[in-house]
Amino acid sequence: MSTQSTDDTYQSFLDHVQQYHYLGGASMVLGWDQRVTMPDAGTPARAKQASALSSVQHDMLTDEDLAAWLDELDGSVEGDRAAVVREVRREHERATRVPDDLVEQITETRAKAHPVWKQAREASDFSQFEDVLTEIVDLRREYAEAIDPDRDPYAVLVEDYEPYIPLEDIEAVLTELREQLPPLIDAIADSDADLADPFEGTYDQADQETLVREALDRVGYNWDRGRLDTAEHPFSVGTQFDARVTTRFSPDDPLDALGSTIHEFGHASYTLGLPDSEYGTPLGSARDMTIHESQSRLWENHVGRSLPFWRQFAPSLQTHLDVEATPRECYEAANTVDPDNLIRVEADELTYHLHIVVRFEIERDLIRGDLEVSEVPAVWNDKMEEYLGVRPANDAEGCLQDTHWAGASIGYFPTYSLGSMLAAQLFAAAERDLGPLDDRIETGEFDPLADWLTNEIHQHGCRHTTPELVRSATGEDLTADYFLEYAREKYGELYGIES
Amino acid sequence: MSTQSTDDTYQSFLDHVQQYHYLGGASMVLGWDQRVTMPDAGTPARAKQASALSSVQHDMLTDEDLAAWLDELDGSVEGDRAAVVREVRREHERATRVPDDLVEQITETRAKAHPVWKQAREASDFSQFEDVLTEIVDLRREYAEAIDPDRDPYAVLVEDYEPYIPLEDIEAVLTELREQLPPLIDAIADSDADLADPFEGTYDQADQETLVREALDRVGYNWDRGRLDTAEHPFSVGTQFDARVTTRFSPDDPLDALGSTIHEFGHASYTLGLPDSEYGTPLGSARDMTIHESQSRLWENHVGRSLPFWRQFAPSLQTHLDVEATPRECYEAANTVDPDNLIRVEADELTYHLHIVVRFEIERDLIRGDLEVSEVPAVWNDKMEEYLGVRPANDAEGCLQDTHWAGASIGYFPTYSLGSMLAAQLFAAAERDLGPLDDRIETGEFDPLADWLTNEIHQHGCRHTTPELVRSATGEDLTADYFLEYAREKYGELYGIES
Repeated sequence: MSTQSTDDTYQSFLDHVQQYHYLGGASMVLGWDQRVTMPDAGTPARAKQASALSSVQHDMLTDEDLAAWLDELDGSVEGDRAAVVREVRREHERATRVPDDLVEQITETRAKAHPVWKQAREASDFSQFEDVLTEIVDLRREYAEAIDPDRDPYAVLVEDYEPYIPLEDIEAVLTELREQLPPLIDAIADSDADLADPFEGTYDQADQETLVREALDRVGYNWDRGRLDTAEHPFSVGTQFDARVTTRFSPDDPLDALGSTIHEFGHASYTLGLPDSEYGTPLGSARDMTIHESQSRLWENHVGRSLPFWRQFAPSLQTHLDVEATPRECYEAANTVDPDNLIRVEADELTYHLHIVVRFEIERDLIRGDLEVSEVPAVWNDKMEEYLGVRPANDAEGCLQDTHWAGASIGYFPTYSLGSMLAAQLFAAAERDLGPLDDRIETGEFDPLADWLTNEIHQHGCRHTTPELVRSATGEDLTADYFLEYAREKYGELYGIES
Repeated sequence: MSTQSTDDTYQSFLDHVQQYHYLGGASMVLGWDQRVTMPDAGTPARAKQASALSSVQHDMLTDEDLAAWLDELDGSVEGDRAAVVREVRREHERATRVPDDLVEQITETRAKAHPVWKQAREASDFSQFEDVLTEIVDLRREYAEAIDPDRDPYAVLVEDYEPYIPLEDIEAVLTELREQLPPLIDAIADSDADLADPFEGTYDQADQETLVREALDRVGYNWDRGRLDTAEHPFSVGTQFDARVTTRFSPDDPLDALGSTIHEFGHASYTLGLPDSEYGTPLGSARDMTIHESQSRLWENHVGRSLPFWRQFAPSLQTHLDVEATPRECYEAANTVDPDNLIRVEADELTYHLHIVVRFEIERDLIRGDLEVSEVPAVWNDKMEEYLGVRPANDAEGCLQDTHWAGASIGYFPTYSLGSMLAAQLFAAAERDLGPLDDRIETGEFDPLADWLTNEIHQHGCRHTTPELVRSATGEDLTADYFLEYAREKYGELYGIES
């Protein structure tokens, strides 16, 4: 009796969860369309459609039946079912604790903030953005306190993107990066090495597109379940049945499109590796942003920026772009470190993480009330100078460069660095299991790595918490060690630095 | 007090209606994506997403609060508000009367029927399709009886597509076409006229696309609120902010793409002419399929197939396709009548309506129980012979050619002919108000006609019932007279027939 009843409850619960996820899939289609195919004038109608969908999803997530099913199932199911209950309960509780009018206020403020931020950035004038950012910080603090008034509000916010790695562990990783990377970057800055740059002039977009499509072919993108388009800010979105990639083309820098494309391929490969049979449940959904970013960075950096990759791919530059360059020259161009760069999205693999540390420390202190919004430009510039040795000359190339805070995303930035750390850790674990991958990458044999990632990461969906998943795949907790070792070895060799 | 309370009720009601419409807009985006951009493998996930959305919409339409608001508002509001209540009540009542499990059965049977129909058509074997068509006819009869057990079930089904024109008026129009068109078609068949066909060989798809884009430019498509793509079966979908057109290209027949494009432009122009401020309400929604089809056919036939249109457009054929043809030759090619043609979608303006009459009579008799499904092929062929003088040699070119019945759409076909009748009637009314349009079409001055259609039809949304709208725009009830006069004059001249 009791088992039968639990089964029935679980089925009702699961039906509800699936409907909720399917509507999430519909939202993603609307988002893709808006960023890729929608005419600009469609914005007002699309905003209404997206908001109506979110509202229905919110109602389904805070539904009283769902609450009752969760109460009944918690503790009475095991294994995969318990994992599904754990994940849904987590989302349900967060959604239930935040009052509807606060959700609406955040949505409205975000909509209002975006054009204000854009204009402020164009004018390079943080003061124009200050008021609305103050509102956002206050709303996000209120949001965190609604979820849990007894915990550090920043820790609560980070859990929207990385729900399971404790903030102290995240801080430990970022602190290590802040301490360990500057000596390496200084050594690079002091080095006499002159890395190759075979890219001069401009390159036709159609030719670049042919090039990146070939790259997607080689790394094994499943075109039957995807497509490539262009977008202002490249992204990937979809389901295990249809995971799409976007990229963008810079006339004078084909490595930009190539890097973006392989990065987004990494995201799509994760989505496509989720089990078909679990579509619509947490077991068929991506774990979190840390894991997602580890997949994109692994393919972008450990594959796409490797010397063996360029040993196979350099001839394609000649074929499609008429660029005559040796694999070594391409490898150098793809891995040039520029300590003077001020822009996160243009940063190399090393300085990138110091950009993240700057943002992390500022947003954490804003939310904790340890920093006033008005102080952001000065503190930003000071931290850039302290960690990277460069000082932005204005707000546009300083604290106004990223869209995240205008989008009310606070707590997102750390996952970028965590993803990179995990990418290095996973690549090392894959080599431990599969043997060295250089020869395979050079001969285009990507399946062993792809299959390893699917088996160790993708196919599990949200079965495990993030720390459990990291341990099961790598045998260790998340650590910066593998990244730092990789960075020292790779850049030591490139820049001729004694270690 | 009472007024205030009605205002409040109306506002709650309207909020609900708008949310419902916004979700409908989201469904349309999913549909466009599926037909235009989605990789085929995305089908299973898309089916779940679309079905979850429909289910939410169905719940919103049959909602008890909505029922209470409708009861309170009916009779207590006037003007536009009364029109909104009328339209929502109609939809609500139809949805409420049909049991959920019948809706599900229809959805499932439709999903099952489509591949069966495709295979049967490929095998040209109606017997493979017979069982599932029988199920569909039974389910649709059940559906009609659920909505109103006391009325002719076919009349009830037609109202899904044309809610306000009584079936007897529809039958009267179709009967007139069945009686009046054959003598004209016979005279054409007997005529010695040899119409020009300047299209020989094949035409590059990119060149054809340039051509149809130029046609869209000329007729005034608002590219800021739309886009052109290709689809297997051309369609148009969207909102007043974003109404998209699709077309398809046939290598040896550029007039096919051109006709489809202008036809779909007509649909899009209607959507774009709906008032922005009423998006999400019946006042900002298209009236029905009859009115929609009148807009597409008016542009396709009365503009795009006219001699003055070709006086301006013939040079573009030379420019883009290297086809040297006079306007008269193009005009003749675009209006060649082929009485031997067996396929509806390839039919000319005249024989087309006899194809519709065949379908109308068969589906009506099936639903009424006056015809067995097994008799369809023979009856189809007999009617084709009787009305058109040609007999299909097999089921593929006979009763299996259209997808409508496999899609559980029964009652849709008549709106195609009604749309053509109304197109002619509206064009005549526009000329009565604006003066002759030939010179304007020849010089590319399409705005007066477009503005007239927006003022008389588009901007009203569902403010009026269909007969009211037809009368307010043309001063008369819907009639076949204008179409028949247009047909006799145009084809009489083309084929040198004495009238």
